[in-house]
Amino acid sequence: MVSDPITSPANTRIKALVRLRDRRERDATRTFAVEGYRELLRFLDAGLSMRTLFVCPELFVGSNESALVDRCRQSGAEIVEVSDIPFRKASYRDRPEGLLAVAAQFDTSLDAIPLTENPLVLVAESIEKPGNLGTMLRTAEAAGLAGMIVADPTTDPFNPNVVRASLGTVFAVPLSITDTATAIDHLRSAGVVIMATTPEAVLPYYEADLRGPTALVVGSEQYGLSPAWLDEADANIVIPMPGSVDSLNAAMAAGVAVFEAVRQRSRPSEPTSIHFA
Amino acid sequence: MVSDPITSPANTRIKALVRLRDRRERDATRTFAVEGYRELLRFLDAGLSMRTLFVCPELFVGSNESALVDRCRQSGAEIVEVSDIPFRKASYRDRPEGLLAVAAQFDTSLDAIPLTENPLVLVAESIEKPGNLGTMLRTAEAAGLAGMIVADPTTDPFNPNVVRASLGTVFAVPLSITDTATAIDHLRSAGVVIMATTPEAVLPYYEADLRGPTALVVGSEQYGLSPAWLDEADANIVIPMPGSVDSLNAAMAAGVAVFEAVRQRSRPSEPTSIHFA
Repeated sequence: MVSDPITSPANTRIKALVRLRDRRERDATRTFAVEGYRELLRFLDAGLSMRTLFVCPELFVGSNESALVDRCRQSGAEIVEVSDIPFRKASYRDRPEGLLAVAAQFDTSLDAIPLTENPLVLVAESIEKPGNLGTMLRTAEAAGLAGMIVADPTTDPFNPNVVRASLGTVFAVPLSITDTATAIDHLRSAGVVIMATTPEAVLPYYEADLRGPTALVVGSEQYGLSPAWLDEADANIVIPMPGSVDSLNAAMAAGVAVFEAVRQRSRPSEPTSIHFA
Repeated sequence: MVSDPITSPANTRIKALVRLRDRRERDATRTFAVEGYRELLRFLDAGLSMRTLFVCPELFVGSNESALVDRCRQSGAEIVEVSDIPFRKASYRDRPEGLLAVAAQFDTSLDAIPLTENPLVLVAESIEKPGNLGTMLRTAEAAGLAGMIVADPTTDPFNPNVVRASLGTVFAVPLSITDTATAIDHLRSAGVVIMATTPEAVLPYYEADLRGPTALVVGSEQYGLSPAWLDEADANIVIPMPGSVDSLNAAMAAGVAVFEAVRQRSRPSEPTSIHFA
């Protein structure tokens, strides 16, 4: 399908793209935007399909864009050419790469995360900074987690800055968006042990047994975890810090805990350190 | 000392502040800028002193600024009042807080890092992104490292975006800026074991013994570590990743390795896992 090129920044479709920066608009339309070559590649690799791909060939930075555009077209996307000025208006970036898609929000129910084979899950409650949520998704992808649960989001994973900071791993990691009570019920009923990270805990994270079905839960940058998680968790764990507690970034704390679990699980037949204590 | 308030963005001192965004200017003048309440507090707490503090009271966001200004004045700083428009021109931030200091670059020789008491050191080679360098400094501070060596910097730690991303921990962590050959010689002669992290290694980082004097070395976002580090290191170590290697952010990789060393060193009398293998 070929539409007429868009040349005016006042075009209604450009205005609709700008509105997608707003969470209410994303929630109301159940759509979101995916911008950039790397992000779109991960989107397609995840088997997802977009409605529309807006392209501005004069902004292409490499030589692989046309193959990507062909792939999008073959998957059923409408391809709409946009000239430089309106594209820059729609873009979420300082240096747009000429590729911006609109897609339906995919399934983020708890069923999206398989909890069957000894799952390791990261739960992030009310994270504020898109960069932190994106970094956590990258970490979840690198660590091969069963999935990531975003509980009571302050910033939603469909935020364009999350998509970007995640480098598109938001499409590769099984992802659920839900509220804390529902997440706790779901994890419990699947027999997943809930480990809540908090500076107030006394049990070091590396002395907790993270080898079984485990959910590692991290709280918001400013407030940490809510009482619901801290009270309902099977254990509260702490990352002991010789220096200042407030120096460790929320995403870094999540990564340190996640990779300790990966470490423990890489040698499942060995006792964890807790048995030495 | 009280100067006349600066009201014009064309003022030579405002222009000089703007030029400090440029590394050549910082290197030539051996000065740098420190902006923001939290950053200045850590600067003062580190016992450092500034030459000049530029203040714009109408931009103050809290009520503690005047106490901070008094502290700066008592430490010998010249206090210069600046009105809104020129301050915004000099500021490195979208939302300036009305506090911007100029200070001499402090000692970043290798002697700045004490290598006596079983040191744990992070070495970062040619990191490009200020955010990553800042996050590594925060992690070094949280982990209570003996110090951080910035080898062959692409982005220098006096970059205002590093100061900011570090939340001022750049002043709290013993810091050295040097070249790779000098760093390797220095670490070797102090008996520090050099552990180079690379996706090409076969030894998992958690099977390496990190309990003795150790330097953990991480490379640039794009190119990883140079052959000099990989060849001269006592061991090359890898963070095994069930998912994609390129998903793990450079600062996250550094943090995961650093906190594994902290974990091992928290129980020095226990054997590390390498003895079980």
